[in-house]
Amino acid sequence: MAVVTPLNGDGSVDAARLLAHCQGLLVAGCDGIALFGTSGEGPSFSVAERMAVLEALLAGGLPPDRIIVGAACAALPDVAALSHHAAAAGCAAVLMMPPFFFDGVDDEGVFRAYATAIETTGTPAPKVLLYHIPKVSRVPLGLGLIERLAAAFPDIVVGVKDSSGDWPSTERLLERRGDLRIFVGHEPHVGRAIANGGAGTICGIANAAPTLLRRLCDAPAGPAGSAARLAVDQVAAAFDGRPVIPTLKALTAAASGFPGWNRLRPPLTPLADDDQEAVARLLRSAQRAATVGAPG
Amino acid sequence: MAVVTPLNGDGSVDAARLLAHCQGLLVAGCDGIALFGTSGEGPSFSVAERMAVLEALLAGGLPPDRIIVGAACAALPDVAALSHHAAAAGCAAVLMMPPFFFDGVDDEGVFRAYATAIETTGTPAPKVLLYHIPKVSRVPLGLGLIERLAAAFPDIVVGVKDSSGDWPSTERLLERRGDLRIFVGHEPHVGRAIANGGAGTICGIANAAPTLLRRLCDAPAGPAGSAARLAVDQVAAAFDGRPVIPTLKALTAAASGFPGWNRLRPPLTPLADDDQEAVARLLRSAQRAATVGAPG
Repeated sequence: MAVVTPLNGDGSVDAARLLAHCQGLLVAGCDGIALFGTSGEGPSFSVAERMAVLEALLAGGLPPDRIIVGAACAALPDVAALSHHAAAAGCAAVLMMPPFFFDGVDDEGVFRAYATAIETTGTPAPKVLLYHIPKVSRVPLGLGLIERLAAAFPDIVVGVKDSSGDWPSTERLLERRGDLRIFVGHEPHVGRAIANGGAGTICGIANAAPTLLRRLCDAPAGPAGSAARLAVDQVAAAFDGRPVIPTLKALTAAASGFPGWNRLRPPLTPLADDDQEAVARLLRSAQRAATVGAPG
Repeated sequence: MAVVTPLNGDGSVDAARLLAHCQGLLVAGCDGIALFGTSGEGPSFSVAERMAVLEALLAGGLPPDRIIVGAACAALPDVAALSHHAAAAGCAAVLMMPPFFFDGVDDEGVFRAYATAIETTGTPAPKVLLYHIPKVSRVPLGLGLIERLAAAFPDIVVGVKDSSGDWPSTERLLERRGDLRIFVGHEPHVGRAIANGGAGTICGIANAAPTLLRRLCDAPAGPAGSAARLAVDQVAAAFDGRPVIPTLKALTAAASGFPGWNRLRPPLTPLADDDQEAVARLLRSAQRAATVGAPG
C-alpha cells in the first residue's frame, strides 16, 4: 500500500507516527509499505529527508523486505541516490517514476533516463518497479517501452505500478506481463486486476481501510471480496470533486482519530473542515456496510 | 538571458565551457546570466551539482551580481538550500518557480509554498523573481497572487519572469507592476514588453544571438530594433514543431561551431541531424538579415 506521510507542526516528517502507522498497516494485513510515493507526497521531500525517514523506520524495526521506496525526482542523480540507499538497506524494491519536469518527451528519452538511473545506482542493483502514472508524471510508459526496459534490465526491472486508472490499458499490460509483477493504483480496479493475474495493489485507501483492501485482494471474485469491493468503491467516492492527497489524509485522520494527519506540505493544502467531515462520514458508512457484508 | 547548460560526454556539466559561454555573453552585451532555468534544464540537476557549478563560475571570475540562479525544485527544502547558497554568494536574484510536481493547486497553497521557501532560506534574504511559466510548471501565478506575495515580502520579491507567452496577461502584469521588475521570456514579446515598462528579457535565443537581443532591448521601437525584432522572430521560427530546449541547444551549437552543445540530460534528447542543420540554416539566414538591417 502507498503510505501517506505524517507531518509535525513545523512541516517536518513525523517519523515516529509514520513508523507506528506502518506497523499497524502490516498488522492489519498489508503485504508491504510503499514509502514516499505520490500519495506520500514523495517529491515534496528532499533526498536527505527521505533517506533519514527510511533510516528511522528501519531503526524502529520495520522490515526492509516489506518496504518499497518511492524514488520520484526530477534530477536523475537524485533518483540514483535514493535507489542506491534503498537497495543497500535491503528494501524490497524502488518505485521509479520517469523524470517528471519535462512533458512531451519521447520513448527514447524515457528509456535513456531509466537506463541512466539504473546504471548509476551502482551495487547492489535495485529491484525496480516502473511507475506509470501519466496524469501526474506527464510521461506515459507504453507497453513497448516497458517491454524494452524489462528486456534491457531483466533482473532489475521486476514490475510495474499502473496508476493510469484506465482499465483497457491495464488489461493489455496484464495480458503481456510476462515475468513482470503488475500492481494497480486505482482501487476500483484492484479486484479485476488480481483476477487477471495482477500481483496486487499499491493504493492509498489502505491507509484508512487496510482490512477492506486485504479482503479484496484475498477474494477478488468471491462474495467476501464483492462486499469489500463495494465498500472500497464507497470510500473511493470521497475523491469525487476533491483533491486526491488531501482527501487521503482526511480519510487517514478519520480512521485514526488524529486530526494532525491533515497536515500537508505546501503547495498542497488540507481539505476544508466540512469536507473533512463529509469524508469521515463516507468512511464510517463504508466500514459499516463492509461489516454487514463480512463473512462470519 | 537564460543560459543553456553544456554537458560532458558522461552527462556531467562542462563548467569550463559554461564559464566561457557566460563570459562571451556578457561581452556580447547581455546584462546578466540566468543559470539553471528551464532552458538550462535546471530541474534535471541535483542541488549539489547546481551549487558546484555556481561555485566554479564564481571561482572563474563571473561577477555574482550578474548572475540569477534558477531554484526550481519539487521539494521546498531544496528551493531554500539553493536560494540560500545563491544569496550568500551575492547573486543578483533567485528565479523561483512554484513547486511543479502537483497540478491543480490553489493560490493559497502556492502562497504558502513561496512563503515557506523564502522564510526557510534564512539570511541574507534573497532577491526573488517569481517565475510564471504555467505551460511548464503547471502552476500559474495570477496577478492577485503576485500582488499578495509582493506585499508580504516587499524587499524580497523584486520581480516576475513572465514566460507565459500570452501577451494580454503580460500587458496586464506590466500595467499593474508597481515596483516589480518584469522580465519576459517569450522573445517575440520582448520589444513590446520593454516599450510598456518591462525591465528586459530572460530568454533562450540570446545563447545563440546575444547581440540581436541587445539591439532589441536598446531600441525596442526604433528602426534598428525593428530589424532586430524581425531577425529574432526568424530565429524563433526554429521552435515551430520542434522541442524547445533541444532546439535551443542546436542553435547554440550552430552559433558556436561546437556540436557538443547538442548533448542533453535524459529524458531530453538531441534534435535529429537534419533538424540540427535546418535550425543552423535559419540562424544564419536571420543573422544575415539582421546585418543588412543594422545601423551604420
